[in-house]
Amino acid sequence: MRAVRLHSYHTQPVIEQVPEPTISGPLDVIVKIGGAGVCRTDLHIIEEQWADKSGVVLPYTIGHENAGWVAEIGAAVTNVAVGDTVILHPTPTCGLCQACRAGQDMHCTDNAFPGIDSDGGMAEFLRTSARACVKLESTTRPEDVAALADAGITAYHAVRKAVPLLYPGTVCVVIGAGGLGHIGIQCLDALTATTIVVVDRNPDALKLAEQLGAHHTVVADGSHVDAVLEMTGGVGAEVVLDFVAEQGAQQEGFAMTRRNGSYAVIGYGSNLDIPTIDIISTERNIIGNLVGTYNDLAELMVLAQAGKVTLHTRTYPLDGALDALADLDAGRVRGRAILVP
Amino acid sequence: MRAVRLHSYHTQPVIEQVPEPTISGPLDVIVKIGGAGVCRTDLHIIEEQWADKSGVVLPYTIGHENAGWVAEIGAAVTNVAVGDTVILHPTPTCGLCQACRAGQDMHCTDNAFPGIDSDGGMAEFLRTSARACVKLESTTRPEDVAALADAGITAYHAVRKAVPLLYPGTVCVVIGAGGLGHIGIQCLDALTATTIVVVDRNPDALKLAEQLGAHHTVVADGSHVDAVLEMTGGVGAEVVLDFVAEQGAQQEGFAMTRRNGSYAVIGYGSNLDIPTIDIISTERNIIGNLVGTYNDLAELMVLAQAGKVTLHTRTYPLDGALDALADLDAGRVRGRAILVP
Amino acid sequence: MRAVRLHSYHTQPVIEQVPEPTISGPLDVIVKIGGAGVCRTDLHIIEEQWADKSGVVLPYTIGHENAGWVAEIGAAVTNVAVGDTVILHPTPTCGLCQACRAGQDMHCTDNAFPGIDSDGGMAEFLRTSARACVKLESTTRPEDVAALADAGITAYHAVRKAVPLLYPGTVCVVIGAGGLGHIGIQCLDALTATTIVVVDRNPDALKLAEQLGAHHTVVADGSHVDAVLEMTGGVGAEVVLDFVAEQGAQQEGFAMTRRNGSYAVIGYGSNLDIPTIDIISTERNIIGNLVGTYNDLAELMVLAQAGKVTLHTRTYPLDGALDALADLDAGRVRGRAILVP
Amino acid sequence: MRAVRLHSYHTQPVIEQVPEPTISGPLDVIVKIGGAGVCRTDLHIIEEQWADKSGVVLPYTIGHENAGWVAEIGAAVTNVAVGDTVILHPTPTCGLCQACRAGQDMHCTDNAFPGIDSDGGMAEFLRTSARACVKLESTTRPEDVAALADAGITAYHAVRKAVPLLYPGTVCVVIGAGGLGHIGIQCLDALTATTIVVVDRNPDALKLAEQLGAHHTVVADGSHVDAVLEMTGGVGAEVVLDFVAEQGAQQEGFAMTRRNGSYAVIGYGSNLDIPTIDIISTERNIIGNLVGTYNDLAELMVLAQAGKVTLHTRTYPLDGALDALADLDAGRVRGRAILVP
Repeated sequence: MRAVRLHSYHTQPVIEQVPEPTISGPLDVIVKIGGAGVCRTDLHIIEEQWADKSGVVLPYTIGHENAGWVAEIGAAVTNVAVGDTVILHPTPTCGLCQACRAGQDMHCTDNAFPGIDSDGGMAEFLRTSARACVKLESTTRPEDVAALADAGITAYHAVRKAVPLLYPGTVCVVIGAGGLGHIGIQCLDALTATTIVVVDRNPDALKLAEQLGAHHTVVADGSHVDAVLEMTGGVGAEVVLDFVAEQGAQQEGFAMTRRNGSYAVIGYGSNLDIPTIDIISTERNIIGNLVGTYNDLAELMVLAQAGKVTLHTRTYPLDGALDALADLDAGRVRGRAILVP
Repeated sequence: MRAVRLHSYHTQPVIEQVPEPTISGPLDVIVKIGGAGVCRTDLHIIEEQWADKSGVVLPYTIGHENAGWVAEIGAAVTNVAVGDTVILHPTPTCGLCQACRAGQDMHCTDNAFPGIDSDGGMAEFLRTSARACVKLESTTRPEDVAALADAGITAYHAVRKAVPLLYPGTVCVVIGAGGLGHIGIQCLDALTATTIVVVDRNPDALKLAEQLGAHHTVVADGSHVDAVLEMTGGVGAEVVLDFVAEQGAQQEGFAMTRRNGSYAVIGYGSNLDIPTIDIISTERNIIGNLVGTYNDLAELMVLAQAGKVTLHTRTYPLDGALDALADLDAGRVRGRAILVP
Repeated sequence: MRAVRLHSYHTQPVIEQVPEPTISGPLDVIVKIGGAGVCRTDLHIIEEQWADKSGVVLPYTIGHENAGWVAEIGAAVTNVAVGDTVILHPTPTCGLCQACRAGQDMHCTDNAFPGIDSDGGMAEFLRTSARACVKLESTTRPEDVAALADAGITAYHAVRKAVPLLYPGTVCVVIGAGGLGHIGIQCLDALTATTIVVVDRNPDALKLAEQLGAHHTVVADGSHVDAVLEMTGGVGAEVVLDFVAEQGAQQEGFAMTRRNGSYAVIGYGSNLDIPTIDIISTERNIIGNLVGTYNDLAELMVLAQAGKVTLHTRTYPLDGALDALADLDAGRVRGRAILVP
Repeated sequence: MRAVRLHSYHTQPVIEQVPEPTISGPLDVIVKIGGAGVCRTDLHIIEEQWADKSGVVLPYTIGHENAGWVAEIGAAVTNVAVGDTVILHPTPTCGLCQACRAGQDMHCTDNAFPGIDSDGGMAEFLRTSARACVKLESTTRPEDVAALADAGITAYHAVRKAVPLLYPGTVCVVIGAGGLGHIGIQCLDALTATTIVVVDRNPDALKLAEQLGAHHTVVADGSHVDAVLEMTGGVGAEVVLDFVAEQGAQQEGFAMTRRNGSYAVIGYGSNLDIPTIDIISTERNIIGNLVGTYNDLAELMVLAQAGKVTLHTRTYPLDGALDALADLDAGRVRGRAILVP
């Protein structure tokens, strides 16, 4: 089959022929890929940011945001059948450890993360496990929903954790209205009655944000921290969801956060550097966010099927993967780029 | 009356004669001080760390950890009477704003913090407000409990916030077994069944920690991060309570924190500098902690009266304030130094 | 002044002349009533249901849902001034007890409940306290918002407590789309993405419910429990909000509640009678709901001012109080009846 | 093998020879029973209380509280091996449904409950599933811990849910210091700093309660509700854990519960019959409790291994099952009866 494979860091992946994956355990599932999202993390992988953390051995197939159809199942699989349309939770999990049993499955101690630490979904087929499969209506097109598998679930997870803090009268700032942010705005609108303020460098992204539920938008032109403080009577927002968290956004996001508020880190790429006296004198929290749980993904699919979350996507053929990566890197993608094998 | 007053930053306070405070509003309370705690924050105030944040005008009286007897009350005060023994919540609050009404009174928008931004309690008398007074048994000696008013409440608040994370089978690391830490250890022991690991440079502090409930102790000799990781199967602790958070402890504390865990900042003095990828890839949280609420103080007094939290203190006369500050700075105080006017 | 006074149980109140209330304490506030809501609890008071609980001495003025303008203030009042437009939290509270400080002010131990245990607001003037006043825009008409002071806050409080249980994919049943229920439906729509099912005997109330956000409606015609079970795959709803809770609704509401779900009691009037084996074998909860907190009222005013909660009201002059009570009793009021003195 | 089988309701079970269970699915596990607890629910089963709910077909083997050694495993089992010592979560669960993934595994939609709705553990062997096995130290004797599998987990679960309500200064009443209650008292002592008040008819049970951590005991002699109210300044307890909840205890337990408090139902057998006005006027909650989660059991094993929870048991041979049931029914068992095949 064809697959998008990384052979060495700081060089482009190669689209090449590899053997198809096969069932190796009783709970394995082989999925024919119908849509594979292209994520900023793929650029970060190529830049070697994840090499130490993932320990992956090159070459390997990238792609961690996948949907498709079940092609083959292991002997103990009961929840899906060959032919089912599925979207895949990004981390196949064991179902047996404390984290899996506590509703924190992305912290499974026997965690794999296909596309990051093992072969992913920018290919014709992917091997995953039964527990990762969310069954969909047979009429759903995988390419239409694939971006919910990682961009969507991550944005949803960050918003859901913040819901108890976002009662009426509060303000939530969203930094970055791109692939994740444009989903986060819709989740905020669906799940809370907070006032949504969106900050982005790109005026087009802000226009999209307004259509999706933003109450106020702020161009990130250097005066945006002051603008947010002014909007909030000088005190900042109860919650800041930072979908960028690099190149200075991370310090600005913390500066926009109110006393007793929470600054949620979702994007990444630089260091957060803050005096501890600023953390304690205002009792602010810094909240990490990884992808969400399987249940997060199932809940997000409910919002999507009710039309409360819609995706802005642009499709490319599998052989156009390098174009998609280049467009993303250059800021030419509104919403999310999707490979369709 | 005599008071300990700061006239300029980076120089020692002066013990001098000043007028006694008087009732100026219907909810004011004048307290005759029976015990005033000496805190590392007093050193940080002298070092000018709080000057910008507090906006205080020099000279002023320091001392933010106070207990004593009610000497005079305003016309609308109903909860205490002249002669009552009281311990004082450090921040007189309005009782009318959203934070006061939400059980977050230390985030009162009409907040004062005597001893930090206005005249404090290292003096014979202090003016506070009705809402700050916790009434005690008449037999209680203020000098015996004063340290609970700030050191105690701060440690208790940090522990109480962590209780839901500290179910049986978890590990909680305490960094620093000094004035706050030695109270935090006792609170952990009273409120949870977690395994308590205490890290400190000083072997004597670790001995005290063991007597107070620590299950394991680790000398902070450079190999302590590795030691904690080894104790926890390589994964770190569910919660790290950092009562130091300066001079490198802050990075070490984060490094000892497990995936999906919480690193609580209580001490302060340096910068926290962490790659955002480390925050998101493990979904760790950094939790700020200020002093606690009035209810926190009332709950802590219950533990103290039940003998579950005992204080290690050393008393000095008011005129010995500079000795107390010097002893604290030099690490010569086990537990907490208390001025008794 | 004119006031609506109850002289004996099981007989109609009398509209008569009484002295105006006066300031008796430094935190008292006298409010000129602009709107006083008429509530099913007023009927229950007349029926003697509250006599033992409230211990009120007859005759007294009823009316516990009030808004108006500040007419006079005590010496220690700082948060409102004469002439301010205000809506009143129903229970003037002390601000000093554990409940007030924990964000549970309706459980204040020094609680009064004007209109239930002391003179209320179906009169030209009412005495309350500073802590009960929520300041409004000067252009707000008290008669337009008065119903939020009790019907609104009670419905909002019940919904807000249920929000964490109502993630996407869940079902919430609302029993009763009257004075409280029609506000509850709007709060659910504003704060959650749950599927809202409304049950009522009255087809007109169900039509209103649909306009306000109900996704499905069910006529309470005897087959409604089965209808709700069928809609939920036989398992029932995650949350049932019972705004009736009398004449059998209370058993039906519990029967509609899913395993591990919560049945919230808001209305009242009959006994709940359930085998304990049914409670434990499915681990269902029965959640009591009183009026909300002051902050609940402030949050609800945010929703109202944003147009997310609108009231359906019908006004009567103060002298028409008996007509209003009769209309309510006969089921002739859509939404809420309001007296305008 | 020998097994204790119920052939018809309202008659004693029969100890007879039946075929051993066999592996029928890839995730099945066969356990050689080392200890099987005898529970009041076994008496209730014989009395036909569970017949409709469980839908079980007679005859079948009772016994839902089991520990032993792994005898055989299915092809897809990875978490235990033949020979491992295990304690069994009472409900083998699917690991795939929303409840299992949300940390609420006892609400698994594909739930079985061996001993209640299918063959249980009062036998030489039991079939369960991989997900139900908690692996223990090889030196642990199953008979010493079996009672933790149901009595223990149920008591622990109820206490753990109440922990956030039981801050210092609160009171928790335990009704019934028998098989479950004597474990609940120890869990309260390990996990909270609340004041523990135990109510029981039996003075010997109260003596045991005092040794296990009760601060106060009250003989249930008819004046016990008044006694608890008097102890709590007339207001009742923040939490009441009712391990009896039949024969009037259920109304008394609710009456002992404070305004804004929670009455937890754990025992069962009669009806709870309460005016809805009493529920709403005080905003009390009634909390159902079933067995706990797998993680609850794992946490409880941590407490047990640390010596914080110890069991009072009396062992009987498998052929003595009828004696054990009779002793339990007659109130002759202190702690828990255990069958050892």
